[in-house]
Amino acid sequence: MANTTLLYYSKLLVRCSAYEKDGSGGGRVRVNGAAHRVPLQVGAALETKINRSLAGLMRPPVLSQPPTEEEAEGRRSQRQNIPSEKQTVDPFRQAVIVEGGVRYRQTVVVRSYEVGPDRTATLETVLNLLQETALNHVWMSGLLGDGFGATHAMITNNLIWVVSRMHVQVDHYPIWGEVLEIDTWVGSSGKNGMRRDWLVRGRSSGAIFVRATSTWVMMNKVTRRLSKMPKEVRDEISPWFIDRHAIDEVATDKIIKLDTNATYVDSDLKPKRSDLDMNHHVNNVKYVRWMLEVIFIIL
Amino acid sequence: MANTTLLYYSKLLVRCSAYEKDGSGGGRVRVNGAAHRVPLQVGAALETKINRSLAGLMRPPVLSQPPTEEEAEGRRSQRQNIPSEKQTVDPFRQAVIVEGGVRYRQTVVVRSYEVGPDRTATLETVLNLLQETALNHVWMSGLLGDGFGATHAMITNNLIWVVSRMHVQVDHYPIWGEVLEIDTWVGSSGKNGMRRDWLVRGRSSGAIFVRATSTWVMMNKVTRRLSKMPKEVRDEISPWFIDRHAIDEVATDKIIKLDTNATYVDSDLKPKRSDLDMNHHVNNVKYVRWMLEVIFIIL
Repeated sequence: MANTTLLYYSKLLVRCSAYEKDGSGGGRVRVNGAAHRVPLQVGAALETKINRSLAGLMRPPVLSQPPTEEEAEGRRSQRQNIPSEKQTVDPFRQAVIVEGGVRYRQTVVVRSYEVGPDRTATLETVLNLLQETALNHVWMSGLLGDGFGATHAMITNNLIWVVSRMHVQVDHYPIWGEVLEIDTWVGSSGKNGMRRDWLVRGRSSGAIFVRATSTWVMMNKVTRRLSKMPKEVRDEISPWFIDRHAIDEVATDKIIKLDTNATYVDSDLKPKRSDLDMNHHVNNVKYVRWMLEVIFIIL
Repeated sequence: MANTTLLYYSKLLVRCSAYEKDGSGGGRVRVNGAAHRVPLQVGAALETKINRSLAGLMRPPVLSQPPTEEEAEGRRSQRQNIPSEKQTVDPFRQAVIVEGGVRYRQTVVVRSYEVGPDRTATLETVLNLLQETALNHVWMSGLLGDGFGATHAMITNNLIWVVSRMHVQVDHYPIWGEVLEIDTWVGSSGKNGMRRDWLVRGRSSGAIFVRATSTWVMMNKVTRRLSKMPKEVRDEISPWFIDRHAIDEVATDKIIKLDTNATYVDSDLKPKRSDLDMNHHVNNVKYVRWMLEVIFIIL
């Protein structure tokens, strides 16, 4: 905390710290939130005074001693605490490695803001939890580099993961407060791909809620082209492969292109800031949210 | 599982179960999600065939033996497992009751989908976690009825909570993978209100990330009017009151109304299905998301 510079805008009720800027800009104030009074008086329109002086916030004041790039990076890795060796237990995420030391299992409680008006988890929540457990699996493997699930050798080679196929089968929707056990594991998929499967079960009943499978390939971050899987990446991940399928897929029907006669169309979709993930991409989860907005009328 | 009726739409890759419908409609198929192939081929437009036959899904088939209302309710409460007596430890939510048996503390890891493009938790995430811990606090108290934090006596009186004031002060934004400890507690606020405060800290450093305070009042669910706090409700919650403030508020400036000269305006906001919470309301969290979309340019 010693290096923290706090800026008070008491009139605004905004308080920001500057030290977390990752060393790149030297003292630009980060404002990705604002301490505020949300004036949600019952029946009254939304009122706020935050806007009044935000223009002033955009002009950054000069800070004393912004952290160097190494200092900022060091703090960040300490806070993230990504392991460099394989772990078998993660107490904070309530996870263990099972089945021969390669299959991941995490206990998760469905949260109040992860359910829709009918109190069951939304499909968006399901997909978020699949993404989360996949990343936590890589986290425990000791292979996670500084990226969205990329391994050390992938980072050396400028490679990122992209999903090429996903198949999610929901048997039942979990409800608010329900305790889930989510298993995920990986397997081979051809010469250059990786398969990842999931099984979501109710912890008390053991009933299966969701089965899912997916295929992942590698893309070069710079050229934006698909890449072969380098031998060193295969050497990293192949010890984790299991040959087990969460869904028995009888056929892999080709998905037909939509034409102008589609039943449900929304051509007015623009990605918002809150649609971007940490790769600055609109990922599969947000696409599904958009699809659901268009096709479902439930109320 | 014995009472489950599964409907297969193999052509569609959609599979739905009907047994979860809470007994109200007698066999209407719930479709709040669709097992699907999300066709996110790299660089290709989104393609789907889900839409092709959704019209068919809207015509509900007749199911054998939908559960009675009592059966559905029984299943639901078993799955939610809401305690009827005070608990001091919640292993699944990693929570404990501290400080004289009334203050709630939960350990939480910032998830991959809770951070923005800069890898720090969004303000929306912060507000979601405040909501979540508040509800989990009531969960552990043994007072939680069948509602969004409403106590048993509130339900008897047709009352729900509404927030009348909220003040959130962010000192630092937590980052992806960071382990947090969130404390929350309640106190009195005048004759008819309740105060709720929060403190969000980094678990390893103890550094404070967020301080927050709020005031809650009661609204009659039927008349939609504010209500006095009945004595039986006060008797339920007052044993939990602590006189401790997370934020020392020097002044409670009145928030001025916006006029047509506001710097940042978006008059084209419509609530989407995904903006509704389980009270079928757009709550404070979504309002803040909307505000941030309008006022921040960070990329």
